[in-house]
Amino acid sequence: MTLRVAVAGASGYAGGELLRLLSTHPEVEIGALTAGGNAGSTLGQHHPHLTPLAGRVLEETSAATLAGHDIVFLALPHGQSAEIAEQLGDNVTVIDCGADFRLVDSEAWVEFYGGKHAGHWPYGLPELPGQREKLRGANRVAVPGCYPTVSTLALLPAVQASLVDSAQLVVVAVSGTSGAGKGPKPNLHGAEVMGSASAYGVGGVHRHTPEIEQNLAPHTDGPVSVSFTPVLAPMARGILATASAPVTEGTTIEQLRAVYEQAYADEPFIYLLPEGQWPQTQATLGANTVHLQLALDQRTGRAVVVAALDNLTKGTAGAAVQCMNLAAGLDETLALPLVGVAP
Amino acid sequence: MTLRVAVAGASGYAGGELLRLLSTHPEVEIGALTAGGNAGSTLGQHHPHLTPLAGRVLEETSAATLAGHDIVFLALPHGQSAEIAEQLGDNVTVIDCGADFRLVDSEAWVEFYGGKHAGHWPYGLPELPGQREKLRGANRVAVPGCYPTVSTLALLPAVQASLVDSAQLVVVAVSGTSGAGKGPKPNLHGAEVMGSASAYGVGGVHRHTPEIEQNLAPHTDGPVSVSFTPVLAPMARGILATASAPVTEGTTIEQLRAVYEQAYADEPFIYLLPEGQWPQTQATLGANTVHLQLALDQRTGRAVVVAALDNLTKGTAGAAVQCMNLAAGLDETLALPLVGVAP
Amino acid sequence: MTLRVAVAGASGYAGGELLRLLSTHPEVEIGALTAGGNAGSTLGQHHPHLTPLAGRVLEETSAATLAGHDIVFLALPHGQSAEIAEQLGDNVTVIDCGADFRLVDSEAWVEFYGGKHAGHWPYGLPELPGQREKLRGANRVAVPGCYPTVSTLALLPAVQASLVDSAQLVVVAVSGTSGAGKGPKPNLHGAEVMGSASAYGVGGVHRHTPEIEQNLAPHTDGPVSVSFTPVLAPMARGILATASAPVTEGTTIEQLRAVYEQAYADEPFIYLLPEGQWPQTQATLGANTVHLQLALDQRTGRAVVVAALDNLTKGTAGAAVQCMNLAAGLDETLALPLVGVAP
Amino acid sequence: MTLRVAVAGASGYAGGELLRLLSTHPEVEIGALTAGGNAGSTLGQHHPHLTPLAGRVLEETSAATLAGHDIVFLALPHGQSAEIAEQLGDNVTVIDCGADFRLVDSEAWVEFYGGKHAGHWPYGLPELPGQREKLRGANRVAVPGCYPTVSTLALLPAVQASLVDSAQLVVVAVSGTSGAGKGPKPNLHGAEVMGSASAYGVGGVHRHTPEIEQNLAPHTDGPVSVSFTPVLAPMARGILATASAPVTEGTTIEQLRAVYEQAYADEPFIYLLPEGQWPQTQATLGANTVHLQLALDQRTGRAVVVAALDNLTKGTAGAAVQCMNLAAGLDETLALPLVGVAP
Repeated sequence: MTLRVAVAGASGYAGGELLRLLSTHPEVEIGALTAGGNAGSTLGQHHPHLTPLAGRVLEETSAATLAGHDIVFLALPHGQSAEIAEQLGDNVTVIDCGADFRLVDSEAWVEFYGGKHAGHWPYGLPELPGQREKLRGANRVAVPGCYPTVSTLALLPAVQASLVDSAQLVVVAVSGTSGAGKGPKPNLHGAEVMGSASAYGVGGVHRHTPEIEQNLAPHTDGPVSVSFTPVLAPMARGILATASAPVTEGTTIEQLRAVYEQAYADEPFIYLLPEGQWPQTQATLGANTVHLQLALDQRTGRAVVVAALDNLTKGTAGAAVQCMNLAAGLDETLALPLVGVAP
Repeated sequence: MTLRVAVAGASGYAGGELLRLLSTHPEVEIGALTAGGNAGSTLGQHHPHLTPLAGRVLEETSAATLAGHDIVFLALPHGQSAEIAEQLGDNVTVIDCGADFRLVDSEAWVEFYGGKHAGHWPYGLPELPGQREKLRGANRVAVPGCYPTVSTLALLPAVQASLVDSAQLVVVAVSGTSGAGKGPKPNLHGAEVMGSASAYGVGGVHRHTPEIEQNLAPHTDGPVSVSFTPVLAPMARGILATASAPVTEGTTIEQLRAVYEQAYADEPFIYLLPEGQWPQTQATLGANTVHLQLALDQRTGRAVVVAALDNLTKGTAGAAVQCMNLAAGLDETLALPLVGVAP
Repeated sequence: MTLRVAVAGASGYAGGELLRLLSTHPEVEIGALTAGGNAGSTLGQHHPHLTPLAGRVLEETSAATLAGHDIVFLALPHGQSAEIAEQLGDNVTVIDCGADFRLVDSEAWVEFYGGKHAGHWPYGLPELPGQREKLRGANRVAVPGCYPTVSTLALLPAVQASLVDSAQLVVVAVSGTSGAGKGPKPNLHGAEVMGSASAYGVGGVHRHTPEIEQNLAPHTDGPVSVSFTPVLAPMARGILATASAPVTEGTTIEQLRAVYEQAYADEPFIYLLPEGQWPQTQATLGANTVHLQLALDQRTGRAVVVAALDNLTKGTAGAAVQCMNLAAGLDETLALPLVGVAP
Repeated sequence: MTLRVAVAGASGYAGGELLRLLSTHPEVEIGALTAGGNAGSTLGQHHPHLTPLAGRVLEETSAATLAGHDIVFLALPHGQSAEIAEQLGDNVTVIDCGADFRLVDSEAWVEFYGGKHAGHWPYGLPELPGQREKLRGANRVAVPGCYPTVSTLALLPAVQASLVDSAQLVVVAVSGTSGAGKGPKPNLHGAEVMGSASAYGVGGVHRHTPEIEQNLAPHTDGPVSVSFTPVLAPMARGILATASAPVTEGTTIEQLRAVYEQAYADEPFIYLLPEGQWPQTQATLGANTVHLQLALDQRTGRAVVVAALDNLTKGTAGAAVQCMNLAAGLDETLALPLVGVAP
């Protein structure tokens, strides 16, 4: 089987990473590459690392240019996916890397994103219980945000097993600057970023907060509340999330470790590191992996889970390809690196 | 008044930063510079940035080489300060940048550092209520650790005003690599560090944890418990701490802001940023300042305080010079930059 | 004497660095701070590191707002200095950090910058033979470009002593991203810059090329020709220039070293490092210093000189303050750090 | 065909990169992994990014542990390859990533490396004219140094076509810190490296100098002389080389471009970028590619060629796998990425 694949928003970071992965996919033929303002330029002007595709010319993003493909990846600004998807019809599989179809709760959408809520699609996190099955054969997929993926995977086993108080979850996540997108902004200037760490979106106002809670809530009886703070660090890629919560009475480190081992034993991309080894983002760079480690702080009674991933790979484009593999009935791991690029 | 000052451990990072600041101090004459294994080499071999002092030869660290100075700064490995200090006598002011005399609780010392507890000296954080007075004229000062300084200053006003539950404090602090000292270690290799964030000392095992609690406990009636996680980020200097805690019933953001404004209104080095502006470590680089900002997350009921400082300046050597100024009866702010080096 | 000083273009990188230095100057009172598009905002929104000045509001850049000061620093885009300077009159000392008045040769100006050549002012590199005298009491100064400063100082002693063939000078200079200015551009995005080195302005087209030649030509009888290539490296500040040229017959390393020692023996900011120690930009960060080292490659017969400086300090704002000190009859070194901020 | 492959020196950077590539090679089965002092530990302790191999235990490097494989990669310190190779016998293909067998000239070896010269093996740069044929079926290969690869490929077409004066070649190459190896050294400490550029091995004393000349000399009648200066930049991987030389009378940019286009038209890994686009190391990160661009500086009469590669991939381990593919009669491009990991 060869899938004919189009990428809308090919000049951005998610688009570039999609093409890096797709260019090695044995069952994929890369079709139309489209852009907004960058239409008419070559891919190589925006992504010189995509050497073999560098001469490809970017077309205008429209239903017309995207039609006629088996799979269409959308890597567009918020609010642009719904109209395109509708025009493409049901026999095209649409995988949206944006936020438009992630949230079930329309009120939360309106509060955090503003504008009209487009609806929700099958959520592209196969590691959620029961979710993999919903993605097989799906013709619409909403790829999760990078922070929700790492935060959810860090907390889910403990929440699901009721080993922690899910009403008091705290996540501080350090992210590289590619997570902010490719558009030039004053605070993303290299000279501002290098040598500096900074906080933003503090106090529960980051858009990914309701998505994390949406992922965890179905898997516990108790209330779910996440205090989420993102921190910008001087690196191009990578997220390191430190998640913690009070453990429930009597919880031991052995129990905690056991539920994580069990939850991820058969997951191809999620690795609980050997005891004593803590995650570092570099080890996941360019790979579709998540590295995890945990501790139980006896003094404070909090479980602390640290998780690392590459925001562009497992955090966005790798997850999207993983979903495409599932949707198309292929081996879920095709074209998805297990080995990071380090040092 | 001219103070004759010696620096023991001059070839390390704390020693280098002390000399950077002292070299501009109008009341200081720089005397003996000593080292352990680096004795006999020139200062410039270790600190080429200390241009005017580059030709100075490092002597052996001993009571003999350090005697005859008004002020002796100790920037030595743990456990070496007590013996030196004893030999120097009471008419020499000794300011210890190491951990030996920071903790009051001998049991906590033994648990976190091992070996015999040397005792405790006046704690060099003038911003603690009542502490400035204890430092004026002191002849022994224990300079705080960098993480405790930023964590304490981030949390103290809220804890003191009982606006948060001090039993549920959570701090995640992102630090540059100079905080780990100058000794070459595999995990500090430039190629390992650049492009990567990593966690270490997770689960309440970092040595700075009891020091933070020691600073906060006297200022509240309730129990104090801090979950502290340090994260290593790819930058040479700087710490960005994200501290949070559940607010007590009815606490408003206005109340929170008011107690921080009040607490730091007269502090020369602590700045609560204008609303909407969040700290970035770069803005404090090389300065003796702490930048703070806070939010109240209505959804989770947690106060979130973000604080930035330079671990080598206000985090170590700047604090040490601030304490020297107080101990010697000088203007507390002499030779201490208020302006960071950015970008 | 207190000089009342204004800074036009205060929200940019050169403006910020000027204010960092001027804020510690004992003879300076900081007056009007002006900007173009950023007028009306506070300085702290653009330069949070300038803590004590953060609340100052930026005025519109105009002759009216700048009038009434003893010294006016211009840190404006190319082409805007002439009109302002003319309106300010001769009793105001104008120090231009831009390129408008650097080149003597109008044709070169038109070729490299385009537009009308405004003329030339006393060139603000006091280390050029005879130049210091021209700057004392000057009421107009053109501050050199950062690349010309480091390149000129690296090559001048050898060229002047005819120890190298000045027709075959080659300079490759690695620069941090602040040199490109603060305006956000796609290639300066943090994610593009970090982890990457790139070349630009290759093949003699960089605007600083004629300025380097202009500096060297008066000091040799032979023709002067410089092949100059700038390279962008992932750091916020700093330039490391590698300059080389074939030595003339019989030149020895001892001769080379001697002419550099002699040339810079009395210069307060130029340091020839001890033999065997090579410059690193970090050692000059935030300082007004230049670090130099040299070698004679016996196999190829080329002298190789490596020089480091901070592009914003000795490369721009530090040089400007140095010139102000000379122009105002003050000690040339006032408010100019000799010690870098490292690590 | 499945090749059973061993890697000696698996805990170092070259070893890690070999395993990253080999883990995706369809014709390779990874056999023994050996180390020196790290024998007995798991691969994951040294290379957490090699997730699927993390549990493998490192054996002692010896002929006994390496015997019984089809291919043995040596990634050992200088001077250790000869003895091992001899014991392995001729029916094992040995690919040496070290320097022991690169130089033909024994005197140059002794001068630059010291000790006894072990001899020379077929040189693993298939892009040299006639070299690919020598590598097909070879049972011994000496993989080039990273600097010689990028410098040679940058200069060869111009030298070969006599468009430049090969006696006056100048190369300044900016490199990431992984090129210095994994052993912790004071100057490679993250805090020393970040935010800093520095020169080393200046004046023709870098060991790679004779190797570059050895590569170029056979392809021109004239004398070959290279002034080579390496610069350390704050990035983990990547080399950007700026190579220049005076052009011979009458040489045009069109001629220059034509010889590069022709030389590399059929090379799978060497890309001459479109006019106006200059190489950046990030675009080659993790890929086996070299990106090139060139200019002719009319003012100075110098051709300037800029080339980028990843020192660990095409600079070392990628080249080694490329040579293995040739030696084993496989498709030369197997398991070698054409797409870099950017941003």
